[in-house]
Amino acid sequence: MSDTVGQVGEFGLIRRIRNLLDREGFQSPSVTIGIGDDAASFLPRQGYEILVTCDSLVEGRHYLPEEIHPFDLGRRAMVLNISDIGAMGGKPLFSLVSLGLKSDTPVAFVEDMYLGFVEELNPFGASIIGGNLTATGDRLFIDVTLIGEVEAGKAVGRSTAKAGDVILVTGHPGESGAGLQLLLLSRSRPELKSHPLIKAHLRPSHRAREGEAVARSGFARAMIDTSDGFAGDLGHICDESGVGALLFAEKLPLSADLKNAARILGADPLDLFLGESDDYGLIISCAGHHVAQIRAAVASSYPGLLSEVGVVTEAEKGIRLIHGDGSGREIRAAGWDHFKARSP
Amino acid sequence: MSDTVGQVGEFGLIRRIRNLLDREGFQSPSVTIGIGDDAASFLPRQGYEILVTCDSLVEGRHYLPEEIHPFDLGRRAMVLNISDIGAMGGKPLFSLVSLGLKSDTPVAFVEDMYLGFVEELNPFGASIIGGNLTATGDRLFIDVTLIGEVEAGKAVGRSTAKAGDVILVTGHPGESGAGLQLLLLSRSRPELKSHPLIKAHLRPSHRAREGEAVARSGFARAMIDTSDGFAGDLGHICDESGVGALLFAEKLPLSADLKNAARILGADPLDLFLGESDDYGLIISCAGHHVAQIRAAVASSYPGLLSEVGVVTEAEKGIRLIHGDGSGREIRAAGWDHFKARSP
Repeated sequence: MSDTVGQVGEFGLIRRIRNLLDREGFQSPSVTIGIGDDAASFLPRQGYEILVTCDSLVEGRHYLPEEIHPFDLGRRAMVLNISDIGAMGGKPLFSLVSLGLKSDTPVAFVEDMYLGFVEELNPFGASIIGGNLTATGDRLFIDVTLIGEVEAGKAVGRSTAKAGDVILVTGHPGESGAGLQLLLLSRSRPELKSHPLIKAHLRPSHRAREGEAVARSGFARAMIDTSDGFAGDLGHICDESGVGALLFAEKLPLSADLKNAARILGADPLDLFLGESDDYGLIISCAGHHVAQIRAAVASSYPGLLSEVGVVTEAEKGIRLIHGDGSGREIRAAGWDHFKARSP
Repeated sequence: MSDTVGQVGEFGLIRRIRNLLDREGFQSPSVTIGIGDDAASFLPRQGYEILVTCDSLVEGRHYLPEEIHPFDLGRRAMVLNISDIGAMGGKPLFSLVSLGLKSDTPVAFVEDMYLGFVEELNPFGASIIGGNLTATGDRLFIDVTLIGEVEAGKAVGRSTAKAGDVILVTGHPGESGAGLQLLLLSRSRPELKSHPLIKAHLRPSHRAREGEAVARSGFARAMIDTSDGFAGDLGHICDESGVGALLFAEKLPLSADLKNAARILGADPLDLFLGESDDYGLIISCAGHHVAQIRAAVASSYPGLLSEVGVVTEAEKGIRLIHGDGSGREIRAAGWDHFKARSP
């Protein structure tokens, strides 16, 4: 099992992947042509729209190869795409996986990654129906396309928030970003390796089932997943909807783990909460009298927190944070920018 | 216009791309949510299957940055995916483009590439509805996902060829591969730069309309596009269908340009014809009494050659080439392997 990609070749590797998927993957009855042809094909359900998204991970940019097991890497690559489909209110159906590999990449690495993909797709009855393999340069890349479905007219986008809406968020934003900082720090301080936020970073989960339930309820005005960070993603809603936002500092769900991480990192927990972090939770806006229905939809499958953190305002107000004493400040709605100089 | 990707940032670049697509791209009425959300969505047509394929180009592996204009690079990336959809008998509808860029990549380079994408998509009324931008390592990558549609039950795959079928091929296989070799040689012999096969390599066209017409006719048994090379792609049909093939050497359409290239390269034109080459023509198998219908379908939009080059045999025969005098040899059906050591 210590074969490399270069030893088994492109078509040998495709055979190994097909065998793995035949053995471990879900076999969807709506797939009419699967892996191994010029294109895959499936029969869409009547009355449903097709959703499609893609996202990539690049070695050393989005993951540190020495810090993450290929199984977790595969899970992560799929989680972030499942999260996008869920944030539209959809259900994942099919995936295409495009990999840029090196000749000396072990086949077992690729197989472990596929086991990670399948681990995340199987619970939805979703399957991998195609992809591409190629040789790359100095960094591996994993580009996942995920196709989903949503009942026609039920998709919830980011451009439909209205002034006066309540802003809700699931879970504890900022934890994954803090976990990444701890992971980097743990190289010189190994005792940090067991910090719970490092696990939160390496093994993220998604709120796709809750997103689907929220969309099905019909009571959400706008929805987005937190993949850039709370302020960045709320900023996307504001930009696309032409609105602003007012956040109540005391209502932001800063977890004990996040506060602990802030102490270790010498950072302000509020900055960690608002800043760059891929938590794959949901930010939802809805009319104030529909909060209970949104709560019910989320609670149907998620036992975690759903916090009411602010309100949508007119665009001119920007995104502002206020404290109980009336003091406040403007938050820049700048999202995660992949081309800015940063680590890793 | 000499901005770099690093200067305008991820979200600045997304804005520039959206502006370009609003201005130059086709606006499909079936798209319900386009670029700028967690996922795009569209309403599929009733009675149609959805086709989906993806293919990537990596700098220095699939193209030589100093030899190809970004507009042609964009066209090429889209042509090879359109070719895959066409080889199933489908029509392209929507594309997602995932790019791995460097901070110093000029924005104009990205925009020219998008103009190339659009140049190929617009004639089909197909549009770009999503994608992803990320920073990469030492080599750019372009990963295109293309979604198409085909009338339910009409898709033509590679696994359905039958012993006794006639084998047909469009155009002149091998020309693109020979063009690539000439391109490399032209670095030391600049007088070769104007060789017509270099243009054939840099500006490939596809036979997607003909593939769709062939599938609609209902008379093709199996179909594949030539992206690995004639012997490699015929080999895929044979592998997936569990058949062999007998090729008639005198019937193979070796063009004058290919013979000329063979002389320059000191190669056997037959080897160039059979070997690695991405020509994006079609190999079609059909019952002998349906050749006329296939000819009519192809001729409806393609004035070029459609050659009857052999017959499908039992699997045990492998893939064999015979000459008029009865002599022959076995051809290895090994396709293009991206992980084999090769240039470029």
